[in-house]
Amino acid sequence: MKALVYQGPGQKAVVDKDKPTVLKPTDAVVRMTKTTICGTDLHIIKGDVPTVEEGRTLGHEGVGVIEEVGSAVNNFKKGDRVLISCITSCGRCANCKKQLYAHCEDGGWILGHLIDGTQADYVRIPHADNSLYPIPAGEDEEALVMLSDILPTGFEIGVLNGQVAPGCTVAIVGAGPVGMAALLTAQFYSPAHIIMIDMDDNRLEAAKTFGATDLINSARQNAIETVMALTNNRGVDVAIEAVGIPATFDICQEIVTAGGNIANVGVHGTSVDLHIEKLWIKNITLTTGLVNTNTTPMLMKTLESGKVQPEQLITHHFALDEIMAAYEVFGNAAKEKAMKVILSAD
Amino acid sequence: MKALVYQGPGQKAVVDKDKPTVLKPTDAVVRMTKTTICGTDLHIIKGDVPTVEEGRTLGHEGVGVIEEVGSAVNNFKKGDRVLISCITSCGRCANCKKQLYAHCEDGGWILGHLIDGTQADYVRIPHADNSLYPIPAGEDEEALVMLSDILPTGFEIGVLNGQVAPGCTVAIVGAGPVGMAALLTAQFYSPAHIIMIDMDDNRLEAAKTFGATDLINSARQNAIETVMALTNNRGVDVAIEAVGIPATFDICQEIVTAGGNIANVGVHGTSVDLHIEKLWIKNITLTTGLVNTNTTPMLMKTLESGKVQPEQLITHHFALDEIMAAYEVFGNAAKEKAMKVILSAD
Repeated sequence: MKALVYQGPGQKAVVDKDKPTVLKPTDAVVRMTKTTICGTDLHIIKGDVPTVEEGRTLGHEGVGVIEEVGSAVNNFKKGDRVLISCITSCGRCANCKKQLYAHCEDGGWILGHLIDGTQADYVRIPHADNSLYPIPAGEDEEALVMLSDILPTGFEIGVLNGQVAPGCTVAIVGAGPVGMAALLTAQFYSPAHIIMIDMDDNRLEAAKTFGATDLINSARQNAIETVMALTNNRGVDVAIEAVGIPATFDICQEIVTAGGNIANVGVHGTSVDLHIEKLWIKNITLTTGLVNTNTTPMLMKTLESGKVQPEQLITHHFALDEIMAAYEVFGNAAKEKAMKVILSAD
Repeated sequence: MKALVYQGPGQKAVVDKDKPTVLKPTDAVVRMTKTTICGTDLHIIKGDVPTVEEGRTLGHEGVGVIEEVGSAVNNFKKGDRVLISCITSCGRCANCKKQLYAHCEDGGWILGHLIDGTQADYVRIPHADNSLYPIPAGEDEEALVMLSDILPTGFEIGVLNGQVAPGCTVAIVGAGPVGMAALLTAQFYSPAHIIMIDMDDNRLEAAKTFGATDLINSARQNAIETVMALTNNRGVDVAIEAVGIPATFDICQEIVTAGGNIANVGVHGTSVDLHIEKLWIKNITLTTGLVNTNTTPMLMKTLESGKVQPEQLITHHFALDEIMAAYEVFGNAAKEKAMKVILSAD
């Protein structure tokens, strides 16, 4: 089969690999029908994630059809259509029993990281009963690909951790796919205002169509002053950090109101200067996290009922065997006006 | 009347002042019977709190007897024994309606800060109906002085924000009065282990008698390594920071487990280096805050029912007119083995 593999910093290629097989009774092998590329994959290719070995097949998102299951798999059988979660979870360790699947003692984010991932014709999924979800009949597979990672990440780590509530004011710093996922899912809770902050006008315009009430281009405007002016100098109830650099974290710590929440979603490579000399008195809550995907069944229902349309985030389509071209487009997202790309096997 | 006043950095004195009077219909004037000294008062005298003007009467804790009430005060009358909250709250602004009394738009921590405080024969209390609490008959006044500030601070900002729960493991960094208040009130929720970390053996020994299960002297032991060894390398569910310096904040961010909480109680003078490059993935919650004292009625009931004995924190007694000597002892707390001092008018 074909697979997109990491070949050391700056290097990737499509190579021939053996089709994966069931290694443990709890494994399933899935034939991929749709997958996508994540910003994390770009970080891996840059060499930013040293735990990824050369030769690793990338990808942790997608949908497919069960090809083979191990003897201990109960929930799935050959031919079932499944959503693959970016998080593998055994369901029986201490962390899984708290729904802290991100920290599963025999899983977590391993797909396309510590084991071969989804950017291939087939993928082996450990702990299949807990790490795959059945696809409801008639459901849009492309929309579902957004449920592997970005929609639950924006929802759990941004919206739920941030405690978005009716009537509140939310600022989302970063209008990339995960910031947009937070924007879409924040609207489940009817906030009064959602202020979107980014440096890319195309993304801000898209955010407007997705439900943002106010847009700030931080390349041209002072984001902090503009937010304070928009909120009568009060600040926001919820600041969602969806970039992962000190400058965007700073915006969040400056604009959060007394009693408010900073929900960090961004993946950070360096420490940040936390202004606790100002924040100690402000009764704020700062949260961090890798997605647990414990809300996947909930999100599936919002998709089925039309409460969210994550397919809006898809800007480009490719065949799976055009994956090198897809990386080219996704790697130049601003120029290409790309948000999420879909790679289809069929 | 006599009052202990701040006279500029490093200077304090007992001076004669006019007895306060009702200035607004919502005011009460209270004759002080018992008060105490807070670490914050020492910071003010050092000059660390520039918002305090010279001539300000210090103190934000104590109990007393109502001397006079304004025409709009409903809950109290002359002669009532009252507990004074360190937080003044109007009860009717947007923040008060969220029980965020610390950020009352016409109050917050103003006593002994922006208006004259409790280290005097009399004190004027604005918004008396919301800022005073009736004292149940027969209740120990000295224990109640601990409810003005330190007990609710340790409880709300340490224990409640940290989400201490049955069976969990808590570390409290700093065995000063507020750390000890967190230690006492954490036990409401039956944690499995409470690890107390400090550099003072006397305080650690006291913590043991107050219910700490493990003691770490961070002057002699590596606190981080010792906590990790005590927890099978798992870390703690709740890390309570009760000092307010980068080194103690660092301990907290290193020992918190995935999915755990850091509750910052310490008052910080400088920013800290937040290791978000490690914490982003750990699903942690960091909280900060000034006490709201919204739990004062709850704590009063725990006191009445004997579930907490905050009088254990009292190490020294003085007459109110010996306040200069009391400051001398409290200012040399380690040498004097002082925790809380009580100043009595009678």
